[in-house]
Amino acid sequence: MDAAATKMSTAEVSAFLSQVFPQVFGPGGAHKVEAVGAGTARVRMTAGERHLRPGGTVSGPAMMELADAAIYVAILGAIGPKALAVTTNLSINFLKKPEPGDLIADCKVLKAGKRLVVAEAAIRAEGDEELVAHCVATYSIPPE
Amino acid sequence: MDAAATKMSTAEVSAFLSQVFPQVFGPGGAHKVEAVGAGTARVRMTAGERHLRPGGTVSGPAMMELADAAIYVAILGAIGPKALAVTTNLSINFLKKPEPGDLIADCKVLKAGKRLVVAEAAIRAEGDEELVAHCVATYSIPPE
Amino acid sequence: MDAAATKMSTAEVSAFLSQVFPQVFGPGGAHKVEAVGAGTARVRMTAGERHLRPGGTVSGPAMMELADAAIYVAILGAIGPKALAVTTNLSINFLKKPEPGDLIADCKVLKAGKRLVVAEAAIRAEGDEELVAHCVATYSIPPE
Amino acid sequence: MDAAATKMSTAEVSAFLSQVFPQVFGPGGAHKVEAVGAGTARVRMTAGERHLRPGGTVSGPAMMELADAAIYVAILGAIGPKALAVTTNLSINFLKKPEPGDLIADCKVLKAGKRLVVAEAAIRAEGDEELVAHCVATYSIPPE
Repeated sequence: MDAAATKMSTAEVSAFLSQVFPQVFGPGGAHKVEAVGAGTARVRMTAGERHLRPGGTVSGPAMMELADAAIYVAILGAIGPKALAVTTNLSINFLKKPEPGDLIADCKVLKAGKRLVVAEAAIRAEGDEELVAHCVATYSIPPE
Repeated sequence: MDAAATKMSTAEVSAFLSQVFPQVFGPGGAHKVEAVGAGTARVRMTAGERHLRPGGTVSGPAMMELADAAIYVAILGAIGPKALAVTTNLSINFLKKPEPGDLIADCKVLKAGKRLVVAEAAIRAEGDEELVAHCVATYSIPPE
Repeated sequence: MDAAATKMSTAEVSAFLSQVFPQVFGPGGAHKVEAVGAGTARVRMTAGERHLRPGGTVSGPAMMELADAAIYVAILGAIGPKALAVTTNLSINFLKKPEPGDLIADCKVLKAGKRLVVAEAAIRAEGDEELVAHCVATYSIPPE
Repeated sequence: MDAAATKMSTAEVSAFLSQVFPQVFGPGGAHKVEAVGAGTARVRMTAGERHLRPGGTVSGPAMMELADAAIYVAILGAIGPKALAVTTNLSINFLKKPEPGDLIADCKVLKAGKRLVVAEAAIRAEGDEELVAHCVATYSIPPE
């Protein structure tokens, strides 16, 4: 996918998501869209109390939430504002325990079909090179 | 696995989890262990505000949290109190949008190895036969 | 799914597959449809030289081929002769090394949607209770 | 992983695999190791009669075999000659039907742990930019 293929800017995606998923991306939500490119996205999660396990490490479900949200962002950038796109399959590998601090998810769309979009997310703790989790998910796009 | 293989009773698992994961299984947490058998478990999730999407339907991440928690319960029943068992892989298919109300996860251990335990979870809305999601996860068991 | 929902009999599925996938299900192919029910199927694989690893154990790719084929059989039983249904996602866990001998895959359709069908397969060596592999796959059904 | 981390050269991996998996990588086998780097690998599959579907397109199981083999190559490069490493989980998305011709799998190790190694494979038809399949797999490394 080339840059011309970007259907929504970072600002447009952020505005759209604050409306559609206020709990996740709105003020007070843990997630922030940092960048949207041609089939790519970067999303930051600032973990709150409910995302943490004893010891201050981010929980698995919180990482799954981040992966799912970040992949949705990448898909919006690739195909435009489809509020009704839904996750049909998500597969995640947990690779190491994250250090305390923000998590960053970098996503890439692997296929943008008419009915199905597949994308991957690589999650790191900020400032660390090594992956803490890697996720691939499929979204189903409803017919117009 | 036969009944003799159950390593913890329903009450023992519940008590253990209230201590180890109070946010998930403690008082005020959304999850409740309903039954633990020989390589099986049933867990109920009473969705709170933060688990819902507009329209009152349970979010995908909330179902992933339920699946992961319920599979952990089944594993505890099969291998005993291993607080340090960690999810290494989780794959979930979302099959239909759940009706509002409690979700029930029924789990079965597929393999209980020394290093890896694999289990599946079938999630339904209470009172509905059809699955809303199906999940398979692998936990890694640390050496003693 | 109830029995009335079976769209093709065991004999019909076998005849259809000998035509559509002769290399897999035709005479000389390794796979044989043993039963097709309402959203269920049983398929046997008699491993040939090319399916074996040193020691006479069936290879991982041969088990993936069996799982994919058996799930396709279950889907045909559930939705009728759709030659163009294609696998979009397949996730498999290898649980233990199979003993030499035939493998049996038991499948169940988890969701039969208009666009996507999801099914699982549990694979055993004949005469052994324990699973050697467990697979979940999604097929995409082309529009009529 | 940096270049210094490569444990086996391309020639060493090829020689090792011709011995350990002669059916897959030996003379007459469909797979050829093209490159092994620091946590990376490229493997080519020249499809034979048994890998093809009507129309000359490579079958799903043949792509799964390629993905599994190529990921094993990347793992050997990262951790050295472990004949007994076994696939425990493999998840693959089929993204589009490949054009006739050779398939190329590019792999990357996502985590090289002591007990588990996770890697991904992106598969393309030679001369085409778009992915035909994307796979993530976990291998279990036996204790020394």
